[in-house]
Amino acid sequence: MENKSPFTLHNSSSECGARRGEVKTKHGSFQTPVFMPVGTQATVKAVTPDNLKEMNAQIILGNTYHLYIRPGHELIEQFGGLHGFMNWDGSILTDSGGFQIFSLKELATITEEGAAFRSHLDGSKLFLRPEDAIGVQESLGSDIMMCLDTCIPYPASRDQAGEATDLTTRWAKRCRDAHRKRDQLLFGIVQGGMYADLRAEHAQSLIDIGFDGYALGGLSVGEPKDLMYELVGEATPHLPENYSRYLMGVGTPEDLVEGVWRGIDMFDCVMPTRNARNGTLFTSKGKITIKNARYREDKEPLDERCNCYTCRHYSRAYLRHLFQSREILSYHLNTIHNLHYYLNLMAEIRDAIEKDSFGAFRKDFYGRLEHE
Amino acid sequence: MENKSPFTLHNSSSECGARRGEVKTKHGSFQTPVFMPVGTQATVKAVTPDNLKEMNAQIILGNTYHLYIRPGHELIEQFGGLHGFMNWDGSILTDSGGFQIFSLKELATITEEGAAFRSHLDGSKLFLRPEDAIGVQESLGSDIMMCLDTCIPYPASRDQAGEATDLTTRWAKRCRDAHRKRDQLLFGIVQGGMYADLRAEHAQSLIDIGFDGYALGGLSVGEPKDLMYELVGEATPHLPENYSRYLMGVGTPEDLVEGVWRGIDMFDCVMPTRNARNGTLFTSKGKITIKNARYREDKEPLDERCNCYTCRHYSRAYLRHLFQSREILSYHLNTIHNLHYYLNLMAEIRDAIEKDSFGAFRKDFYGRLEHE
Repeated sequence: MENKSPFTLHNSSSECGARRGEVKTKHGSFQTPVFMPVGTQATVKAVTPDNLKEMNAQIILGNTYHLYIRPGHELIEQFGGLHGFMNWDGSILTDSGGFQIFSLKELATITEEGAAFRSHLDGSKLFLRPEDAIGVQESLGSDIMMCLDTCIPYPASRDQAGEATDLTTRWAKRCRDAHRKRDQLLFGIVQGGMYADLRAEHAQSLIDIGFDGYALGGLSVGEPKDLMYELVGEATPHLPENYSRYLMGVGTPEDLVEGVWRGIDMFDCVMPTRNARNGTLFTSKGKITIKNARYREDKEPLDERCNCYTCRHYSRAYLRHLFQSREILSYHLNTIHNLHYYLNLMAEIRDAIEKDSFGAFRKDFYGRLEHE
Repeated sequence: MENKSPFTLHNSSSECGARRGEVKTKHGSFQTPVFMPVGTQATVKAVTPDNLKEMNAQIILGNTYHLYIRPGHELIEQFGGLHGFMNWDGSILTDSGGFQIFSLKELATITEEGAAFRSHLDGSKLFLRPEDAIGVQESLGSDIMMCLDTCIPYPASRDQAGEATDLTTRWAKRCRDAHRKRDQLLFGIVQGGMYADLRAEHAQSLIDIGFDGYALGGLSVGEPKDLMYELVGEATPHLPENYSRYLMGVGTPEDLVEGVWRGIDMFDCVMPTRNARNGTLFTSKGKITIKNARYREDKEPLDERCNCYTCRHYSRAYLRHLFQSREILSYHLNTIHNLHYYLNLMAEIRDAIEKDSFGAFRKDFYGRLEHE
């Protein structure tokens, strides 16, 4: 079952766990640490693939649950998979649908066999086994597939966490066995709740099965920030150095810096895109709430350090006007800016690790935020 | 008061009233016949100025009423006018606000002095005199300003139409007198309701005052299509050949072809942008309602004759999926297509007039539609 790892480690920080590497996929390689914009319904909301290319996005994330429900994976497969359907020729990672099903709460029931749930669109009854999660992702044709996992609520007892984690291991084995299209990579997901020892054990169980990369799941689910950082820091030493490490669903710009510091290579989060649509914009000095009256006559760009399309062409006053007027262009320009901010932050992080100056970079990053 | 005309007539059709010309503005020249995308609130909804450039938009329209209400013309003036505020370096025509105020119905009262109305946003009382309409448009810095006119409902008695038309003449004179920034052109608006003789008289009154171009207002307000075409055909011979002629708020692709046939040079309409957001898409074979189930697995582009960004990259099935999922990208891609359709139609019309083959073009245009 063991593959050659798709991950190549270029260099490691002498100060911390940070790593500079790359992951090879059937659509080329992407450089790590990397942030993956979220494209839930076969589109990164409010931007085109051309916009994503301009901001140097390397890999995006698709949500298996949503695509399975609408328009359906069989339809997407007819169009050359998700790449062909949505016109994106970079890499794509698809989640397994587990987290979304878990989020349906009363609409979902987990059994040994799989997850029974109801569509959030029409209430129809559906059942997803680990084998189905792989089949659907193979139809979608993603570069990186994720195992179906069970998510553990926060807080959860040790027994509850242990049981869910053991089930995730059995499902991971079934995903591995179901995996046919070997040009699509398959990552395992480390659970274990907030119990570091459970996470260490679970990591070893997944390594024994053998995957193309390893993710940390079930974090950023309501626990204190310090606890998340602690668990990430304790988990990464249990993951193989020669495979990529993905911290799922995380997070803020600070979370990315702290995750990289602790040895994480890959991140995804809806925060830059969702906040853009809510008018919360990231800058090197901190967040801006664009509807604020203080920006009414502000001729400056969102961030003087930013060279995105939005900052090169528009004032804060114009962006405030668009947001107040609920213009679609507001969502488009805000999303371009926020994603550019995240992707540029990762490019700067990669550069700093290459120069083995990530500690100084991190200090500057917080220093700029504190000046606000 | 008489200016040199900003319009240059290049050639006229030997078959009909169609003309090929250009209008010189402070932002360059635009080629006619031309369609002007509508940018109500300092943005053409759902697209960027770069998108507009890619589809060869030459001039766009801004709505004075909306900009006066929000964010205010004084604010926009501080940003180098509408051009600087919204980052558009092509030409801009602004309407006078008259039509929008008229559309407020019970919120508006017309007197000799001007129009009293209430803001549709917060109900505040406002009063716009003809002189104010010019002042606001001078602050906006548009290339072409329109006189404040009174709109005539359909149907209207001859007396009602006559009175409103006479008031429009008096207001037109006041607009002419108030006009200070002479690098901004000022167009008069011919009213007269559905009475061809009133329109002919009114045209002469406006010519006597002297404007940089002449518009036909108060059409496409509910009257039968044939009546509109008839009134346009009867009005254009009363307009000076060496000035451009603008048919306001019109219309469908067929209306553009028929308007050009009768000697119109300029058009604007919300139809391509509004229909895009409603999922109604224009093609050379007719309209497509993209939510229709027949497009669910349709691998073809919207229009095989179209080379817009949307048609070069996306299937009808994908566009249907985006529309059904209410994704912002749906509005963006649909708007790019519909505006491209309109602008390309006008480019083809200009080409046909240059070759003096507009009659054949018109026949082909309808022939393709009929094959659907």
